[in-house]
Amino acid sequence: MKLVDMTVSEFVDLMASDAPAPGGGSASALNGALGAGLAAMVCALTIGKKKYAECEADARAAQEKALALKDRFVDIIDRDTEAFNAVSAVFAMPKSTDAEKAARKEAMQSALKGCTISPFTMMELACEALELVRSLVGKTNASAASDLGCAALNLRSAIQGAWLNVCINIGGIADEEFARTYREKGEALLARALPLADAAYQEILASL
Amino acid sequence: MKLVDMTVSEFVDLMASDAPAPGGGSASALNGALGAGLAAMVCALTIGKKKYAECEADARAAQEKALALKDRFVDIIDRDTEAFNAVSAVFAMPKSTDAEKAARKEAMQSALKGCTISPFTMMELACEALELVRSLVGKTNASAASDLGCAALNLRSAIQGAWLNVCINIGGIADEEFARTYREKGEALLARALPLADAAYQEILASL
Repeated sequence: MKLVDMTVSEFVDLMASDAPAPGGGSASALNGALGAGLAAMVCALTIGKKKYAECEADARAAQEKALALKDRFVDIIDRDTEAFNAVSAVFAMPKSTDAEKAARKEAMQSALKGCTISPFTMMELACEALELVRSLVGKTNASAASDLGCAALNLRSAIQGAWLNVCINIGGIADEEFARTYREKGEALLARALPLADAAYQEILASL
Repeated sequence: MKLVDMTVSEFVDLMASDAPAPGGGSASALNGALGAGLAAMVCALTIGKKKYAECEADARAAQEKALALKDRFVDIIDRDTEAFNAVSAVFAMPKSTDAEKAARKEAMQSALKGCTISPFTMMELACEALELVRSLVGKTNASAASDLGCAALNLRSAIQGAWLNVCINIGGIADEEFARTYREKGEALLARALPLADAAYQEILASL
């Protein structure tokens, strides 16, 4: 059964159980989906309102982008757990002969790369979504300002949670070029995204 | 239908729609449930492991607390949206006569207080959960360190998101004593909780 087809309470209970997956990776993807979803809602609550007629065209364009980002994050909720399960599956591979050991090692490296790429993709999406949220502050329905702030907070949690997952998996990767590339790209995304999230939150808080 | 009985994808889609609820309040409650749930999972992955035998008693006690906090957060996912819907219901009340206007005003004040108390309760729970998470850093299964970090991030999003909801609703409350009390108590909770979340995240990140 797909994680996103579970009820919210079943998903949270499975998260809280002794099953190692879903864990922080899928939680971060859900953070991203909530963040992008809230941004889309704030746009929806702005469109068609006389008071915000000037913002309508931008809100429509932003809504479309936010909904697309929401769908991509929802997709990663399951894909991140599948990437984790691929690592777990390697532990069950035989390791008696040298050939088996080599195959196991190669499979592990490939699985760890998958567990790095999945959260890295979340980081890219969260950064894009935070740029969108930042652009909407002060230009959307003020009654939904707290919702837009919660969008920024969820996307902040998504990108930092994804970064923890990139870092914990990169530690086991032998391909130094791969590890270095993802570490550098991830740090660059964080450096771009966190100030956007913090500025959005602070500006919204000051407006309440 | 209760929000927590919807599938994860239905919940996210409803969040992203033009329906004003569920919004940031219920998203913050879900952040809290994910944070407390991840903390419980990390305890579960520590209990029974030889390497962490010394930590087992503490992990068991923490797991019990985390699961109870998770249940309380899950409960608030729906209760926060109910509190919001009570405000929306007031807008439908008649306002032709002075008596109707007075009744409407009183109902609005009561509904806004409900919308303040609900996120304030989340702030209290998130602060308690962050104290728990902070105490678990370095004393739980290192393979799940990123999950514990995601717990801290989700609880940080929960407490700040709840604070935005306290602030937006307190603005409309005429009872100055009520407003002042919740503002002061909320600021105190934030001042206690945010350093715990940031220290947990930074310490975990440095360990990866």
